[in-house]
Amino acid sequence: MNKNLAKEAIVKLKAYKKVVDKELGLFFARQLDECKDIDETACAAISALEDFSLRGGKRIRAALIYYGFLCFSKEKPGKDLLRASMAMELVQSFLLIHDDIVDRDELRRGEDTVHKIFEKMGEKKFSFGKNIKEKEHFGRSAAILVGDVCVALANMALAEVKFENKTRASYELNRVIRNTTFGQIIDSESSYCEIVPESTLQKTLKIYRLKTAAYTIEVPLRIGAVLAGATNREIDKIKSYAEPLGIAFNIQDDILGLFGKKEKFGKPTGSDLKEGKKTLLLLKALELATKEEGAFIMKNLGARNMSEKTVNRIKEIMLKTGAYDYCVNYAKDLILDSKKIISRQNYREKGKSFILGISDYLLEREC
Amino acid sequence: MNKNLAKEAIVKLKAYKKVVDKELGLFFARQLDECKDIDETACAAISALEDFSLRGGKRIRAALIYYGFLCFSKEKPGKDLLRASMAMELVQSFLLIHDDIVDRDELRRGEDTVHKIFEKMGEKKFSFGKNIKEKEHFGRSAAILVGDVCVALANMALAEVKFENKTRASYELNRVIRNTTFGQIIDSESSYCEIVPESTLQKTLKIYRLKTAAYTIEVPLRIGAVLAGATNREIDKIKSYAEPLGIAFNIQDDILGLFGKKEKFGKPTGSDLKEGKKTLLLLKALELATKEEGAFIMKNLGARNMSEKTVNRIKEIMLKTGAYDYCVNYAKDLILDSKKIISRQNYREKGKSFILGISDYLLEREC
Repeated sequence: MNKNLAKEAIVKLKAYKKVVDKELGLFFARQLDECKDIDETACAAISALEDFSLRGGKRIRAALIYYGFLCFSKEKPGKDLLRASMAMELVQSFLLIHDDIVDRDELRRGEDTVHKIFEKMGEKKFSFGKNIKEKEHFGRSAAILVGDVCVALANMALAEVKFENKTRASYELNRVIRNTTFGQIIDSESSYCEIVPESTLQKTLKIYRLKTAAYTIEVPLRIGAVLAGATNREIDKIKSYAEPLGIAFNIQDDILGLFGKKEKFGKPTGSDLKEGKKTLLLLKALELATKEEGAFIMKNLGARNMSEKTVNRIKEIMLKTGAYDYCVNYAKDLILDSKKIISRQNYREKGKSFILGISDYLLEREC
Repeated sequence: MNKNLAKEAIVKLKAYKKVVDKELGLFFARQLDECKDIDETACAAISALEDFSLRGGKRIRAALIYYGFLCFSKEKPGKDLLRASMAMELVQSFLLIHDDIVDRDELRRGEDTVHKIFEKMGEKKFSFGKNIKEKEHFGRSAAILVGDVCVALANMALAEVKFENKTRASYELNRVIRNTTFGQIIDSESSYCEIVPESTLQKTLKIYRLKTAAYTIEVPLRIGAVLAGATNREIDKIKSYAEPLGIAFNIQDDILGLFGKKEKFGKPTGSDLKEGKKTLLLLKALELATKEEGAFIMKNLGARNMSEKTVNRIKEIMLKTGAYDYCVNYAKDLILDSKKIISRQNYREKGKSFILGISDYLLEREC
């Protein structure tokens, strides 16, 4: 591992976050200005989106569009590249807002999810406030619609930039929205399905590929490459290293969701267990556990009111059986494989060192 | 009114529906083919969208893109125009699927809404079937996500066509998604608000402008004009007649939702009353009603379990007070105003006669 490259990539990522967040702020300010003439409720929706989008997040996806472009183009990156990459963050807000409804999460990036925000707002503003069912319906409905506004904004932002290949970028962006959503549908269905050893594992890896590998790593790099005018061969090559990198990222997310520090991760510990998610970590623990341990996990998996004690007991089983170590090492191996392939690419230095640096950073991420 | 022009427009609309539905069928077949490699659940989502999109609908919006193009271009309309206009129907499915969740409607175009379809599917397939809360959550979640897939498909379809101005069309399409969704947010909020005579009326008209006038008439015509390469002046002029036409369309929808034949309209009678919607028809009835009649309406408005007897009593009040006649005539006047403006436009004959014919058709629509 190259600690310096990781450090440099983090510095670059932070610098990028600063400028893209400024651009997001300007974008939302223009939107607010346009919506002032429409209605105060429209403005409230835009403000909610701005708060949500700017409250946190590392901007890895957007940065990968930016540095993906720099892998293939010697052009100086300008405002248009910044804006095109910003669209990815709007897509991210859209997907997160709807995911949180589906997963019934109440916290995101350490604060209320959007449906929770509107639930509380409705409770104060309207007479149904005491009726829990109505309150929940109101919050959820507002969040569905605010999410829909956000995907429209993402497409508007991309339509405004000046790039010859922007329609192809738009196609890539919307195809990955489609596929990520497929991943989410499969994911939320699989919570209800029984575990069948090999087939459940295959399903889990498919969800990782759709929801994370393609969406978080591969397609942002593809969009950058498309905008830079890379060849189809170059664009299609990206998958070879982006997919293992993305799967590793997902496995790490699962680990951090249970073993990470809550204040760093921004989501309550153990929500995957409570939602009944079949993570690789869980499947591996079940594979390696004793009969009693396995029965204990299965008895509690999917219990929305799971106690901290039960969560801790399952964590112990994951550590004791070696499932935890297996997943940590598997993610590490995937990242090392990716790095080898990235190193062989004939990319321009600025882009390549960032992607390699991000890979090194993933080797030791804590949030 | 020109009955012949109306008749001709309906013949053209039906012919257009036939070809655009065939195109939609081909589009979904290609999507299914692509998604076969992804997952069976992805295929199920695509099939659900295909069934929903093709189960009915008049295709007015998509046809207005098509004939809007023909107002400004002498080019023979080809496959690409058909595909671009088809994207509008995908947007329509997306918006309807989410609207039905928000409005808690169970019927759409005479059949189950998408969230109901998935609710029933989940009930059969998974063990939570007996738990109503879980079943509802599953159906709703699936419908949120299937809707999201659909908006991505609409943007993918538009990105694929060959038109010089297609990015501007994409901008228009996504801006109208944003604004229609704003209309829906304002609409669903206003159900919970008390009625304040003048300000509620203004809000209702604003919702009509956003949710129907812009979305159903103005923007489809604008997109057609953009694709045909019309001037900005020509594009901006569209609003002058499209807005009154669209408001009339919305007022008629409200009337048909209460007084129309259920089997033609495809939604249960009185759902606006049950949802507490402040339609122009309702506001006018309240304005003209006696104290007792007004109190009767207000006591029942928004009652989700409203009896047929109560619905009928409110309908009687609407007729007796003249609110019904007022709305019918108001819509008629708006349409006649629009027609005068359309007649003055220097449009090519093929496009113009269709828009005039559709206006004439609206004068006597029954569904």
